[in-house]
Amino acid sequence: MSETTLDVVAIGNAIVDVMAHCEDALIEELGLVRGGMTLIDTEGANSLYARMGQATEISGGSAANTLAGLAALGAKCGFIGQVAEDQLGEIFAHDIRSGGIAFTTEAREGNPPTARCLIFVTPDGQRTMNTYLGASQYLPAAALDLDMIASAKVLYLEGYLWDPEEPRAAMRQAIDAARKAGRKVAFTLSDAFVISRHGDDFRALIEAGQIDILFANEVELASLTGEDDFDAGIAALAPKVPTLVVTRSEKGAVAVVDGTLTQVPAEPIAKVVDTTGAGDLFAAGFLSGHVRGLEVAKCLKLGAICAAEIISHMGARPEADLEALTAQVA
Amino acid sequence: MSETTLDVVAIGNAIVDVMAHCEDALIEELGLVRGGMTLIDTEGANSLYARMGQATEISGGSAANTLAGLAALGAKCGFIGQVAEDQLGEIFAHDIRSGGIAFTTEAREGNPPTARCLIFVTPDGQRTMNTYLGASQYLPAAALDLDMIASAKVLYLEGYLWDPEEPRAAMRQAIDAARKAGRKVAFTLSDAFVISRHGDDFRALIEAGQIDILFANEVELASLTGEDDFDAGIAALAPKVPTLVVTRSEKGAVAVVDGTLTQVPAEPIAKVVDTTGAGDLFAAGFLSGHVRGLEVAKCLKLGAICAAEIISHMGARPEADLEALTAQVA
Repeated sequence: MSETTLDVVAIGNAIVDVMAHCEDALIEELGLVRGGMTLIDTEGANSLYARMGQATEISGGSAANTLAGLAALGAKCGFIGQVAEDQLGEIFAHDIRSGGIAFTTEAREGNPPTARCLIFVTPDGQRTMNTYLGASQYLPAAALDLDMIASAKVLYLEGYLWDPEEPRAAMRQAIDAARKAGRKVAFTLSDAFVISRHGDDFRALIEAGQIDILFANEVELASLTGEDDFDAGIAALAPKVPTLVVTRSEKGAVAVVDGTLTQVPAEPIAKVVDTTGAGDLFAAGFLSGHVRGLEVAKCLKLGAICAAEIISHMGARPEADLEALTAQVA
Repeated sequence: MSETTLDVVAIGNAIVDVMAHCEDALIEELGLVRGGMTLIDTEGANSLYARMGQATEISGGSAANTLAGLAALGAKCGFIGQVAEDQLGEIFAHDIRSGGIAFTTEAREGNPPTARCLIFVTPDGQRTMNTYLGASQYLPAAALDLDMIASAKVLYLEGYLWDPEEPRAAMRQAIDAARKAGRKVAFTLSDAFVISRHGDDFRALIEAGQIDILFANEVELASLTGEDDFDAGIAALAPKVPTLVVTRSEKGAVAVVDGTLTQVPAEPIAKVVDTTGAGDLFAAGFLSGHVRGLEVAKCLKLGAICAAEIISHMGARPEADLEALTAQVA
């Protein structure tokens, strides 16, 4: 097995988040899936945007957010994802590169435009996401940098990208490349509705031993295993993946590694401003410890600190100095 | 004189702000004009953006920010400004309209793209702006909605837009239209460097009695009058404009109306996060009182409250409920 030059390579949606605060009544009125991620088409995006108040644009994308956190923690990273040749694509590319992350996927010419996610943030800090996938769904397998994938300790994949056909095929090919090179494959289940569409695929990947590190939240765990009880869900899933990490919002998180369960409480936080990216940044913290070979308890602690930082402000890209925030853990 | 249907119509740059935090050392290294507004060309914009960290995009533009504040305070407003037919133009148009502001200037086809302002915010909250004017500089006089201008109590103009030739001509025509309709003309001096380029024009407009309400900060007052002493500057300028409003950062603000000087202290604030838009929102608060016929002291107080809100967060568009914040003043 050759030396690795990168810590984590991720494949994910290349999305710019369009974020606005709103009252709970608007979520009701618009019939949005509160707290969830709903795919929308061009028409849906236009009509929803017209109902949105003054917004802020911040680069997003689940796996891209995780990489931004990892890079801020000193990890060497590469990103693979599809933007269009437009202004939002330039913004996404600028922001991911500004963290020192290698991003070489060529922008796609013509329509559709770069993906955007219209995010409504209610007064309780909960985010309701409506994603227009745009160019992101056309990531072709040909765009994969297989050498880059083989050069990284961990390949990280987001479940969100399992919806569109081309990226799904690309991710399957990437898993093969990573495993052939002896690398680890990490996967985040992303969303309960994604699992309702692709749970069979995910369960098959897990049963086939293709996933080394699996990230989920409580709802996704229940959705994937069919077990409403948390402990029953853990008991059903943990034996099938070497490392299972489950986040539980204010109840903290657990990891089960080779049968041993470790827990961490949530980090205290003054006020939850916006939960967008909480899971993404938990994964960033956890993986940053993992690639440095830290013990599981420390990996979980790093995840909890990063998640607390991201929910203390709008947007899913870290604002505080994560290295300073986590200095006492490493 | 016919009835008015709008409170304020503004002509200004149609800009999207690209904002990032940075250390003081970067301002030095890049040779930026700390606290100022510098015009940059395409090449300058690209090279500067490449040095910028993870950024956030928020609609901006001085007069547009003022209107956003005015609309949030319940005023009826219209905006005239030039975007290009691109994604940043759509973002700008969405955000200004989301506040209920009439914006009918048609997007301009082809190059250059919509204006953007690269804003570096240092740890003290000071903003250093670098503006790529793009399409904004091509606002033609033909784009003016003269009926809309004639229908508003106040025409509000930003000095920043005096740099490019076409909008300058458009603004002169707008002043004529407003005055012929018996409306008031308000003008903000915007920036000391703008005054160093166009001070003669500004002084001529003032001497000719074309400006009813003039907004400046201390540095701009000194630049326009040539008087370094604040009181001497006020004494020189106040007799030439019916209403002179000068903001003094943490020292508050003064207004001189028909020879009578009124002062207001700055509103207390926990932490200055980002000074972008402080003057714009002061003007919003002041004008919102003015169009309602409130006494000067109340207009100043409204300005101080709105300025305090805007410097407490990133970006120059209000986040808090300005009507609630100012309820005790009206």
